[in-house]
Amino acid sequence: MAGVAEALVIFTPSGRRGRFPAGATVLDVARALGVDIDSVCGGRGICGRCQVQQSVGSFPKHGIESRSAHLSPFSGVEAEYGDRRGLEAGRRLSCVAQVLGDAVIDVPPESQVFRQVVRKGIDIRDFHIDPAVRLYYIEVARPELASPSGDLVRLQEALEAEWGLTDLEADLHLIRALQPALSAGKLAITVAIHDGRTISGVWPGLHEKAYGVAIDVGSTTIAGHLADLSDGAVLASSGVMNPQIRFGEDLMSRVSYAMMHPEGSAEMTVAVRQALNGLLAGLATKAGITRDDILELAMVGNPIMHHLVLGIDPIPLGSAPFALATDRAVRVRAVELDLKTHLGARVYLLPCIAGHVGADTAGVILAETPHASDTVSLVVDVGTNAEIVLGNRDRLLAASSPTGPAFEGAQISGGQRAAPGAIERVRIDRRTLEPRFRVIGSDVWSDEPAGLSLEVGVTGICGSGIVEVIAELFLAGVITPDGIIDGSLMARTPRVIAEGRTYSYLLHDGSAAGRPRIVVTQNDVRAIQLAKAALYAGARLLMDHLGVDTVDDIRLAGAFGSQIDPFHAMVLGLIPDCDLAKVRSAGNAAGTGALIALLSRTARQEIEDVVRTVEKIETAVEPRFQEHFVEAMAFPHRSATYTHLSGVVDLPSRTAHGGAGGRSVRRRRGSGVTALPGNGA
Amino acid sequence: MAGVAEALVIFTPSGRRGRFPAGATVLDVARALGVDIDSVCGGRGICGRCQVQQSVGSFPKHGIESRSAHLSPFSGVEAEYGDRRGLEAGRRLSCVAQVLGDAVIDVPPESQVFRQVVRKGIDIRDFHIDPAVRLYYIEVARPELASPSGDLVRLQEALEAEWGLTDLEADLHLIRALQPALSAGKLAITVAIHDGRTISGVWPGLHEKAYGVAIDVGSTTIAGHLADLSDGAVLASSGVMNPQIRFGEDLMSRVSYAMMHPEGSAEMTVAVRQALNGLLAGLATKAGITRDDILELAMVGNPIMHHLVLGIDPIPLGSAPFALATDRAVRVRAVELDLKTHLGARVYLLPCIAGHVGADTAGVILAETPHASDTVSLVVDVGTNAEIVLGNRDRLLAASSPTGPAFEGAQISGGQRAAPGAIERVRIDRRTLEPRFRVIGSDVWSDEPAGLSLEVGVTGICGSGIVEVIAELFLAGVITPDGIIDGSLMARTPRVIAEGRTYSYLLHDGSAAGRPRIVVTQNDVRAIQLAKAALYAGARLLMDHLGVDTVDDIRLAGAFGSQIDPFHAMVLGLIPDCDLAKVRSAGNAAGTGALIALLSRTARQEIEDVVRTVEKIETAVEPRFQEHFVEAMAFPHRSATYTHLSGVVDLPSRTAHGGAGGRSVRRRRGSGVTALPGNGA
Repeated sequence: MAGVAEALVIFTPSGRRGRFPAGATVLDVARALGVDIDSVCGGRGICGRCQVQQSVGSFPKHGIESRSAHLSPFSGVEAEYGDRRGLEAGRRLSCVAQVLGDAVIDVPPESQVFRQVVRKGIDIRDFHIDPAVRLYYIEVARPELASPSGDLVRLQEALEAEWGLTDLEADLHLIRALQPALSAGKLAITVAIHDGRTISGVWPGLHEKAYGVAIDVGSTTIAGHLADLSDGAVLASSGVMNPQIRFGEDLMSRVSYAMMHPEGSAEMTVAVRQALNGLLAGLATKAGITRDDILELAMVGNPIMHHLVLGIDPIPLGSAPFALATDRAVRVRAVELDLKTHLGARVYLLPCIAGHVGADTAGVILAETPHASDTVSLVVDVGTNAEIVLGNRDRLLAASSPTGPAFEGAQISGGQRAAPGAIERVRIDRRTLEPRFRVIGSDVWSDEPAGLSLEVGVTGICGSGIVEVIAELFLAGVITPDGIIDGSLMARTPRVIAEGRTYSYLLHDGSAAGRPRIVVTQNDVRAIQLAKAALYAGARLLMDHLGVDTVDDIRLAGAFGSQIDPFHAMVLGLIPDCDLAKVRSAGNAAGTGALIALLSRTARQEIEDVVRTVEKIETAVEPRFQEHFVEAMAFPHRSATYTHLSGVVDLPSRTAHGGAGGRSVRRRRGSGVTALPGNGA
Repeated sequence: MAGVAEALVIFTPSGRRGRFPAGATVLDVARALGVDIDSVCGGRGICGRCQVQQSVGSFPKHGIESRSAHLSPFSGVEAEYGDRRGLEAGRRLSCVAQVLGDAVIDVPPESQVFRQVVRKGIDIRDFHIDPAVRLYYIEVARPELASPSGDLVRLQEALEAEWGLTDLEADLHLIRALQPALSAGKLAITVAIHDGRTISGVWPGLHEKAYGVAIDVGSTTIAGHLADLSDGAVLASSGVMNPQIRFGEDLMSRVSYAMMHPEGSAEMTVAVRQALNGLLAGLATKAGITRDDILELAMVGNPIMHHLVLGIDPIPLGSAPFALATDRAVRVRAVELDLKTHLGARVYLLPCIAGHVGADTAGVILAETPHASDTVSLVVDVGTNAEIVLGNRDRLLAASSPTGPAFEGAQISGGQRAAPGAIERVRIDRRTLEPRFRVIGSDVWSDEPAGLSLEVGVTGICGSGIVEVIAELFLAGVITPDGIIDGSLMARTPRVIAEGRTYSYLLHDGSAAGRPRIVVTQNDVRAIQLAKAALYAGARLLMDHLGVDTVDDIRLAGAFGSQIDPFHAMVLGLIPDCDLAKVRSAGNAAGTGALIALLSRTARQEIEDVVRTVEKIETAVEPRFQEHFVEAMAFPHRSATYTHLSGVVDLPSRTAHGGAGGRSVRRRRGSGVTALPGNGA
C-alpha cells in the first residue's frame, strides 16, 4: 500500500528498533526485529503469552519525544482475554495491538521465550530457559472427502504454514491420539514438539502447561524437582530412599550383588524404576498436576546408578578398566525406562565422564561452571566416593577418590545418616574439654537452657558432626596431629576413657535415660583420617596435573559436602589451603545441574561439549596418589602449610606427638589403602 | 611411491576401468571406481562376500591382450577361507588379492550389494536389493584405564574409521547388549545399522545373516514371506487366518464392533498382533532361524487393518470423510507393536492412499508399476472392496469400489471361501446345458473317469467358480443378458428348477451321499451383478477421469482376482473391454509389493513418491459412478461394446429379454446401491 505512514518502534529492554508501516501488529514487528516474544496460540489472542507493556520514554536521538506509545485502541479480543484471565493496566496482547505511530514497547520477562530463570527455593545460577519440548497451538484443516489426506499430514502442513516447522516426525502414540484430539478440539489442538523434530503430544484446544522433572539418582536417596517448563519455576521438590539399599548399602556391594545373582542387575533396575515412579507420582500430587502432564525428564547419577536406571549391567564398572557402556549423553523415551509419565515424554541423561565419575559430576559442573571461570576452582562432591573437579576455562580435570563411607556416618561407632536426632554441630571447650552440640531438627545448643531437654533425643552423630568433633578435639589438643587420642588427658577430664590399648572421648551419655552413649573412638579417628586423606590426595593429584599449588576457590557439594563447615574441613585438612571466604557449600549441585539441563537445550550442549574436553585422571594408576594419601593422614597435613588458618586458630604443633603418630600411620598404611572400595580393585 | 608400475583394471559386467599402482587390492580399486562389491568383514578375509572371478578378455582398444588377470598369487588367507567355506576355482577374495598388472575382473552377482533379485517361488519384478538394515563387522579398540571412553563411543569411532559411518545413534537395548558382545567376541563384533543412522543390533564375532519378513495383513488371512536380506531369497512363505474374524466377517462389521464396544478397537489390535507373532514364529521355524534373527518387517494392509495393527482407532474410517490418521509411510520399532522379533527390528508400513485405498494398494502399485509404463494399465485388487488403479507414467488414479462379499463366496447360496472341495472351474455344454467342473485340490474334471469319486467331496463353490458358472450359463443362454434365469428352459433340462417366482440352476447334487446340493439361484446372479457392476463402474469412472475409452492392459490381483479366468471375467463384464492376451493375474501383488519394500529402500522412496501423486477418486461423491453402475448391471454391459470378445465367442443377444431385464434392474437399483458397504455411508 503506497502512502502508508511508517512508525519507529523501539523495544525495551533489548533496545532493538526499526521503522514499520503503520498497522503492523506488535508481534510481527518484534519478530522482524528478532525481539524474543513468546506465543503458544500463534497470534490468536488466546494464550496471552505475548503480553507487552505500553511504555514511556524519550528517545530524542530517534525523534521520539512523546511519552505514550502509539498503539491501536484496546480491542475486543484483549477485553475478552482480560475478562477471562485478567490483564494488568497498560498491558497489551502483542498479536492484536497494532503500531499506529512511534512507540516504545517493553517486553516483560514473563513474555520472553528465553527468559532468565528467577532463583526460587533452590540455589541456581543464572541461565536462560530453552526447554527441549515446546507447545504449539494450531488449527488443522478439515478433512475433505474429495481430496483426502491423513490427519497427520494436515497437522504437519498446518505446523509448517503457521510456525515454519518442517520435517517433523511423529510418535506412534501421537498418531493414535490425534484424531480424538482433533474431534474434541473441533480441529483446534495444541501439540508438543520435542527437539524441534518430533511431535510427541497432543491436546484438544489450547493447552498451556508443560512440566518436567529433574532427578538426581543417588545411591541412598533419589531427589527430584518438578518444574514448569515455560518459566522454570520449581513447583515441587521431593526425595525418596533408593530401594536398592536392600541389595547393598554402597555401590560396590550392589555391583557384587549383580555379580552373585544372575538376575541381580535386572532386580535393581526394577527397584530403582519403581522408586522413580513413586517420586514422579509424589511430585505430581504435590504440584497439583498429573503424571501425564510431565513431558520431559533430566537425570543425573553416578555411573552405576546411571547404568542401572537404563537397565545396563553395571558389572564392568566394578573392575578395571571400569568401562562405561556409554559416556555420552543418553536420550531415551520415558516409556523405554518403564516410567509413568506422558507417553511422549523424553528422558535426558547427562553424559558420564569416566567409570567412577558419572553424570552426577557432569551435573555438578553444569551447576558450578568451573569451565566458565578464569580462577582455578576445586569442586568436590563428597559421598562414599568423592568426585573431584579442578580447573578453569582453559583446562578441567576430574577424578574420583575412594573416601569410603565414614563421611556419611557409616563405620563410625556412634555414626548415623543425617536425620533428626543426629549431632551435627560440636564445640569443645579448649580449657575444660567439655563439649556442647546441636542436633538436626533443633536450633538450640545442648548447653543452652532449652537444650537440656533435647539431649535426651540424641540418636547418634552424622557426618558433619563427626568432622566437627574430631576437628574440635584436635584443636583442643585431645587428638594429636597424628590422630592419637591423648590418654594422658584422662587426668584432666573424665571424658577421656581407656578402652583396651587405645582411648576414647565421651561426647554424650544418654544411657541413664536408656538412650545411646555417643563416644569418639580411636577407630573413628582413623576412619576419618583415611577418608580425608583420600579426599585430599585426589584433589592434590589433580593440582599436580594442572601444575598449581593452590586453588582460588572451593565448592563442597553433596549431602555431606554441603553440610560440612569449611573451617573444620580445613582444620582437619580435608581440603587444600584456601582463603576460607572462598570455600562454600554448593548444595545438591548435581541435582541443580539436572534442573538446568531440564530447562535448557543450550546447557545440554554446553555440558556435552565440556565433558568431552575434561581430562580424566584415574587415581588407581597414579603412584603419586598413594604418596599424597600417606602424607595427608596427619591433621591437617604432614607437610602442607595452611596459611589461611594461621591467625584464625592456633593449630597444635605436631612435634610433641609426631613420632608415635607417624609410626602409627605407617603401620596402617597398607591395609588402610587397599581396603578402600573402588581403589584399584 | 615413485616408480611403481601402473596397471589397467577393467571390471565386468560394469565395464568400469581405471589405472592403479600395482599392489593395490582389488577391493580398493573397485571402490575407487565405484564398482559395487559387498563386504561385511571390512577386508579381513573372513566373510567371503567380496569374491571376484579372475576373468579373461581381450580389450585391444585398451591394450589388454592377455587372457589372464595379473593378480597376486593365491594367498594363505584365501586358502584358509577356502578350507573353511569353500572357494570355487578362479575365485579370489578381492580384499586380499592385489592387482599386479593389467587385469579383467568379473564381479559375480552374489558379490554385489545392490544385486538383482532372482525370481524364485513368488512372482516378482526385477529390482535391486537395498535393504534398510545392513551388517558391519568391526573390531573395537580396547578400553584403556588411562583414557577412559565408553564402549559405544569406541564402537562409533571404529565405525567411522573403518566404514566411514558418522552421526550414528544407538538403541538403548543395543547399549545394554554391547559390553557382553564385546566381551564374548573379544572386541570383534558385528553390528546391524538401520537406515544408515541407528545401530540396532550387535553380535559377537562375524554374524552374516539378517532376515526380514514382508506381511500382507488381509481382513481374512495374513500372509508373510521371510527373506534373506542379503540376497532377497524367500526362505519361507506362510499364511494364518486373521483372528479378528470373530469380531466381524468384513471390514465394516469390525468398525461397527469398535463403535459398539469401548475396548473393541484395542481387542482387535491385540488379536491381530497375536496372529502376527504366530506367523513370525511359524515362518522362522520353517526357515530354520529364530525370531531374534528377524531384523526388518515390511507391511501392507487395507486402511482398517493398517490402523488396527498400529493400534489406531479405525472408527473415523467408517464414515465420511473417511479420514486416515496418517496416509504417509510409517516407520516404527517392532517392539512398539508388541511384535516378538529382534529387539532392534523396525517395521515399515507402506503409505495409504485414501480412506478406502490402503497400503495394500500401494503394495500392488509397487509390484505392478503402472506408474513406470507408457501404456495405460488397469490394476484391480478384488476383495470385499475392489481397489482400482488406472494410469501410466503421466497420471495415476485410484479408487475403491464397494463390490461386496459375493466375489469371495459370501452371500452366495452355495458359496464358500477358496479351499479344498470348492468348485473353482465350471463349463456348461451349450447344447445339453449339462455342467462339468473341477474342485480345488484336484486336477481332474468331474466328467473324467477319475473325477466321479471326487464329486462326492464337493463342499461348495468359491468366487472364481461362481463367476465361471454364471458366465457359462450366460453363454449357454440359461441366463439372459439382464441376469434372469430363463424358466422356459425347464422344458429342455431338469437342471433348471422353479423356486417360488424365480428359477435356479442345479450345478451339483451330492444329497444322495449326504453332501451339499449346489444350486445357482436368481439371488446369486443378482449378487454377482451388483458386485461386477460396482467393479466395472469404478474402473469406468477412473477411465472418465483419465479421459480414455479403453485400457491397454489389465492386471487382476488378490485372492479372488488372481484366480479368476480373464475370459469369463470379460464375458460377465467385470472388466472393461481389452485384448484378452493383455489381461493377466497379478497374484498377491500387495504381498509382493511388501516384499519389494522389505528389500529395497529405493522402492520405499519410489512408492512414497508415487502415492503422493496418485489422484484419489471417491466413488461415493461421484454422480457418474451411480450411472455407470446401473449401466453395468447387464451381462456383459447394457451399452459398452466388447470388441475383443467378438470372434472368440457368440454373446447372446439382449434384445430377446431386454425389456424384462431392464425393468428388473431398475426396480432393484435404489436398494442395491445403497446397501453396498462403504458406499456413501
